[in-house]
Amino acid sequence: MKNISILGSTGSIGRQALEIIRQNRDKFNVVALTCNRNIELLRKQVDEFKPLAVAVMDKEKADQLDLDIPIYKGIEGIMKIATLQEANMILNSLVGSIGVIPTIKAIENLKDVALANKESLVTAGKIIMEKLGRHKTRLLPIDSEHSAILQCIRGEDLKDINRIILTCSGGPFINKTKEELENVKAEDALKHPTWNMGAKITIDSATLMNKGLEVIEAHWLFGLDYDKIDVVIHPQSIVHSLVEFKDKSVLAQLGLPDMKLPIQYALSFPKRITNTLEKLDLTNIGKLEFGKPDFELFPCLPMAYEAGIKSGTLPVIMNAANEIAVEYFLQNKIKFLDIPKIIKYEINKFPYIKNPSLTEIIELDKKVKEKTRNDIEQNII
Amino acid sequence: MKNISILGSTGSIGRQALEIIRQNRDKFNVVALTCNRNIELLRKQVDEFKPLAVAVMDKEKADQLDLDIPIYKGIEGIMKIATLQEANMILNSLVGSIGVIPTIKAIENLKDVALANKESLVTAGKIIMEKLGRHKTRLLPIDSEHSAILQCIRGEDLKDINRIILTCSGGPFINKTKEELENVKAEDALKHPTWNMGAKITIDSATLMNKGLEVIEAHWLFGLDYDKIDVVIHPQSIVHSLVEFKDKSVLAQLGLPDMKLPIQYALSFPKRITNTLEKLDLTNIGKLEFGKPDFELFPCLPMAYEAGIKSGTLPVIMNAANEIAVEYFLQNKIKFLDIPKIIKYEINKFPYIKNPSLTEIIELDKKVKEKTRNDIEQNII
Repeated sequence: MKNISILGSTGSIGRQALEIIRQNRDKFNVVALTCNRNIELLRKQVDEFKPLAVAVMDKEKADQLDLDIPIYKGIEGIMKIATLQEANMILNSLVGSIGVIPTIKAIENLKDVALANKESLVTAGKIIMEKLGRHKTRLLPIDSEHSAILQCIRGEDLKDINRIILTCSGGPFINKTKEELENVKAEDALKHPTWNMGAKITIDSATLMNKGLEVIEAHWLFGLDYDKIDVVIHPQSIVHSLVEFKDKSVLAQLGLPDMKLPIQYALSFPKRITNTLEKLDLTNIGKLEFGKPDFELFPCLPMAYEAGIKSGTLPVIMNAANEIAVEYFLQNKIKFLDIPKIIKYEINKFPYIKNPSLTEIIELDKKVKEKTRNDIEQNII
Repeated sequence: MKNISILGSTGSIGRQALEIIRQNRDKFNVVALTCNRNIELLRKQVDEFKPLAVAVMDKEKADQLDLDIPIYKGIEGIMKIATLQEANMILNSLVGSIGVIPTIKAIENLKDVALANKESLVTAGKIIMEKLGRHKTRLLPIDSEHSAILQCIRGEDLKDINRIILTCSGGPFINKTKEELENVKAEDALKHPTWNMGAKITIDSATLMNKGLEVIEAHWLFGLDYDKIDVVIHPQSIVHSLVEFKDKSVLAQLGLPDMKLPIQYALSFPKRITNTLEKLDLTNIGKLEFGKPDFELFPCLPMAYEAGIKSGTLPVIMNAANEIAVEYFLQNKIKFLDIPKIIKYEINKFPYIKNPSLTEIIELDKKVKEKTRNDIEQNII
């Protein structure tokens, strides 16, 4: 029996994780849940899954909640849940840099972490991997690409990896020209062709920043240099990623695009469990296409490679500036092509620290966000 | 250091195996070699690889050979080589049912077998798998499809396999109509679009009998019922086969079509070794296509499924009748569509034995071949 706490249980990943747990009550037990503001759904989840405690990020919302279990509030509340003794696994599906410290706290408290929060590895990959090594806990990626890599390297010697190839659907704009990209709106970007996800990640998929963040995550997760991490465009989102070994043999993981598979794999790892997901029928799909990403049209991807290679505080700045730019684009206050411009503008405006502490990372993240917000509002960029 | 004897060292697989050994002298040592008739090439191979002994199937050719190491003759000679104490691995790339007994003898003598001889598992799969279990030796398939499956299930629990999916290029005639198939010649069939192989296997690829034989081999190798073995047409021959697990996750092995990779994987298993093979670049390939095989147009494939399911002596009869039919088609003495007709005619002309002994298998193989040859010559079919 795995005892699991879910950080962000009312979001897309959290809800799907609970569906999986619902179908596997003999294997998983819910210890605690957290949400941002959606206390109505949280209350239903508590009724069904009977956790020992919950936390609500929004303190006013927390006060409106009436339950006969402890209700913790704010980031301190989330941290409390991340470290509860009864859980042996934390599923971290918090959105944004708020998710970084809970990942670290969970590892320090010897819990396995099923990680959907991108910012954890992007901004604090070095710190997290050092802690993982020291505490001998597992970090299991909830992301179709990294889950694919994890499955492909099972039973293999990590030293035999030549390179990994992350697939990228290309998002809704992959076949657009520069001129067409000038005028796309948030509502166009939110129509992802293959994956149904939250708003922030869907915009990141349209700019290819999402793939850039995944490149940085893969670097930390699998201990690979950036020249061993390639990206190919694969519009059908059936091949979720590939690994090339030193004998030129390539292993790939495939499946219909459904986040339930990587979520379930992270929860059940190293075992596989049966489910009711639809089978992949390649003869029905017919063809799988592959192409090179256009670094000029989608400069967020090469920017992420560069930030990853230079490392230190650069991914922190890039990620924070991107988060704010996406927020403004979602409100149609800036244009699609402004997103990379804003990041490019901000990235050199902060001092470089090679090995930032967690405190430095968190403070820098705040500062970059404030400045980026200010620069956009003041029309400086 | 692996000490390897190669049965059939002058054939396509044998020559490629020696190329791999040439590049990895620190890992592999040649103990003995055998050929059918090509003593000129055998002499060169002996000069280079300095084996302890050789065998030549053709006794007259054997007598023409002058070497300062033992030269064994005929099938007894091949058997001698298959059981030489100095080897810990036998690469069996003999063509036809002549290869069955050497496989069994090698296993009985506690040697790992790298198996390219299709007839071993097709005609005597049950006996071989029982012996493998008893003697705790390894059977490593030299076939891109089975090698792919072996790589995909590495580190996995065999009980988690839902099904395996063998890919099939479809051969040169995959897009032909029944009318067009009526008049294709051996020379057309020998133009395989993606693989460069021997004549017999190339014709088998055109009729899809090759895939049928592989289905039966996969049944024995991986212990799977026939309803868990599917075939998909994949003209590019890049995805070499796939495995679907019980969580609907699919793993696939990919690579450019080059037999050196599966040969090398069998030799170096469980390790991977570097080589100079060309890298797979999916963006260069562009697209991978998949379709359903046409059981009506290519009846050899469903016939093989049926023979495999009924088991016993049926695969023996099917295989022997096919071998003779292909021989006659290669001489343009029968038509392409006669091949399945001949097999269908012969398959019910022999008594069914559920668990034939090795002797019964070998004798039946001879009888079927004689009768098939006779029936074709007499225009009975």
